[in-house]
Amino acid sequence: MNAEIIAVGSELLLGQIANTNAQFLSEKLAELGINVYFHTVVGDNAGRLEQAVRVAQARAELIIFTGGLGPTKDDLTKETIARLLGRELVIDEEALRSIEAYFARTNRTMTENNKKQALVLQGSTILKNEHGMAPGMAITLNSITYMLLPGPPKEMQPMFLKYGRPFLMEQLGHHERIESRVLRFFGIGESQLETDIEDLIDQQSNPTIAPLAGDGEVALRLTAKHHSEIEAKKLLDKTEQAILERVGRYFYGYNDETLFKKTVKMLKEKKKTIAAAESLTGGLFLTELTAIPGASQVVRGGVVCYANEVKEKVLHVPASVLTTDGAVSERCAQLLAENVRTLCHADIGISFTGVAGPDPLEGKPVGTVYIGISTPENGTEVYALALPGQRDAIRIRTAKYGCSIILKKLAAAYEG
Amino acid sequence: MNAEIIAVGSELLLGQIANTNAQFLSEKLAELGINVYFHTVVGDNAGRLEQAVRVAQARAELIIFTGGLGPTKDDLTKETIARLLGRELVIDEEALRSIEAYFARTNRTMTENNKKQALVLQGSTILKNEHGMAPGMAITLNSITYMLLPGPPKEMQPMFLKYGRPFLMEQLGHHERIESRVLRFFGIGESQLETDIEDLIDQQSNPTIAPLAGDGEVALRLTAKHHSEIEAKKLLDKTEQAILERVGRYFYGYNDETLFKKTVKMLKEKKKTIAAAESLTGGLFLTELTAIPGASQVVRGGVVCYANEVKEKVLHVPASVLTTDGAVSERCAQLLAENVRTLCHADIGISFTGVAGPDPLEGKPVGTVYIGISTPENGTEVYALALPGQRDAIRIRTAKYGCSIILKKLAAAYEG
Repeated sequence: MNAEIIAVGSELLLGQIANTNAQFLSEKLAELGINVYFHTVVGDNAGRLEQAVRVAQARAELIIFTGGLGPTKDDLTKETIARLLGRELVIDEEALRSIEAYFARTNRTMTENNKKQALVLQGSTILKNEHGMAPGMAITLNSITYMLLPGPPKEMQPMFLKYGRPFLMEQLGHHERIESRVLRFFGIGESQLETDIEDLIDQQSNPTIAPLAGDGEVALRLTAKHHSEIEAKKLLDKTEQAILERVGRYFYGYNDETLFKKTVKMLKEKKKTIAAAESLTGGLFLTELTAIPGASQVVRGGVVCYANEVKEKVLHVPASVLTTDGAVSERCAQLLAENVRTLCHADIGISFTGVAGPDPLEGKPVGTVYIGISTPENGTEVYALALPGQRDAIRIRTAKYGCSIILKKLAAAYEG
Repeated sequence: MNAEIIAVGSELLLGQIANTNAQFLSEKLAELGINVYFHTVVGDNAGRLEQAVRVAQARAELIIFTGGLGPTKDDLTKETIARLLGRELVIDEEALRSIEAYFARTNRTMTENNKKQALVLQGSTILKNEHGMAPGMAITLNSITYMLLPGPPKEMQPMFLKYGRPFLMEQLGHHERIESRVLRFFGIGESQLETDIEDLIDQQSNPTIAPLAGDGEVALRLTAKHHSEIEAKKLLDKTEQAILERVGRYFYGYNDETLFKKTVKMLKEKKKTIAAAESLTGGLFLTELTAIPGASQVVRGGVVCYANEVKEKVLHVPASVLTTDGAVSERCAQLLAENVRTLCHADIGISFTGVAGPDPLEGKPVGTVYIGISTPENGTEVYALALPGQRDAIRIRTAKYGCSIILKKLAAAYEG
């Protein structure tokens, strides 16, 4: 099945927003094995929309529209398609009741033009809008399937996943379930990971394995299809196992888990508290941890020791260490980790010192990083890194390395 | 002049990236008065690209292509258009030399297929690529202008601004300059700002005034056209003045200046250092300041006093204050700001305490925020805020409020 996605909205043609709806739908359609051959964007103009639909009818078996289902006179997707297909628009009673309920719930007065949102193509399958007012709809005529979805992503995405996708799977005649799982890795490059599992990627068709990358992390999306949910999950398990046999030591979590979320979760599980001394990261590590609700159970806090005087006065790094070894040194990282742990009465102390750039520091090149980790049970260890990239990338990767070190410690030192 | 933007790249149809190039170009074309009526995305497939070009030829006077200019066999934009237009592709010697120089500079060996990137449509105007290898090009044939730009935004954007846009202005016959300026505001909502200057927005056509919004900040983009650069700037100055007469007290900077950049810049100018005590912001304020190169001249550091024990032991907030007033209180904010200033030997101490949510704290609702600011000259002041939104929004807005308070202090207290 070949598809075209038509986004309707002048705001897209004025460059006010990017067409992220097409990106979302393309990814989901690819998972279903549907080929997307074209995206089209057209403004809120009936003539040009009609033109776009005619072009799409000549080259696609599935046309998905986003946008133009709202209450204003600019919203004309339904009206245009109804005219082109020679179909009536009729009030959908359930949608109307849902719109009325929406206004009642938000204490607003429903104006007459909002009723327009309950109009649907006669004979179409209604796709419920659980996050807004305008329902979606789908209909197949003359071997072409038309699906109309709302424009706001927070309405469109859940509607497509819950109602649109099952409709398409029915059309495709495969009553298979799509199960997907993301495996997250840290400390391995995208190209290295792909090389390590190249044969698996090439061999697999169910599940498919697709790499995703960003900020020193890489992830693999496994997508399996099967009539049975249990069997689909088994397929995922088997592929996951094959992958982790190769690169399991870089694996840290599933789906939308971040290194920071995982760190907070593991600290909670092991009932350990943490404090940080942040020089080059400038507070980034603690910012990321405290962004997670419930972090207060395990994060004590710490010191942003950006100036050397703060390292000396607040964290008691001797002036002699700062002058002989330097602030960017193993010895300094060690003392910072130990002293922030005792200062903040935490179970684990971690420190970050290094050169974020743009200029070298103490004769050490940009990317030189020391991370200290201190526990009463295991003393203090220091990891020396040489990170590529620029200021922002070095800072975030350093903070993530901190997480990966803590996760290893938590797994090893506090086992059982 | 009516335009269509055709993006070429299968990665777009697979949903791996969004078509941000179309967004960028649409915005810039709108500024030139060019109407963009369609965006099309097509994959790396000669037949379908040809089809897309034929559709566009029937409805556009300007067709801008992005992508498909690279060295691989998947890159076929030039070849397809050359065939459709009956034009030869010829080696552009300057582009070839520039590609050779690029390889020499990066110490890589140039492979034969890289020469393909120096091929251009015979008779076209070459648009130099100063950030990559493949040159762009533009040509007008049978009243249709074709412009080919590379896909990577960091190559495409500067090429379009420096070479593509002047080419189009020449075509349009208006040798006017486009000058634009962004005015940045904090502490006023988008709708309030629009209401305050509604008549100005409605009256103005040169410059145009377009609002932009995000994270508690709002910005206005002024865009003026004039034959003379000086006159264009005068037009901007005049409109800016009219706007600032209404809402000048919320204005903080121009163009890509952020509140954090502005704060570091002003601290440098006034030769003042800063330290922060961060409870609800968890290090975010210092993270943002230290993200700016050169921050080390003015940022001493600070304490992330997430746990009350850290407030008490490291920042000497008496236990009695924490039990009677609470950690989220005016008194606590005051002591935190004062004590972090003295602890870190800074000229200015700032503190952030409050309830980020998701749950209320000490009986105080989510969004309750106290910001303390302390200087030896002016003592300590505390600002109480009630911020809307959720955890992340509250944290970033609190940090930005901190900046706006510091900027006011720096402007007032250290005047002269």
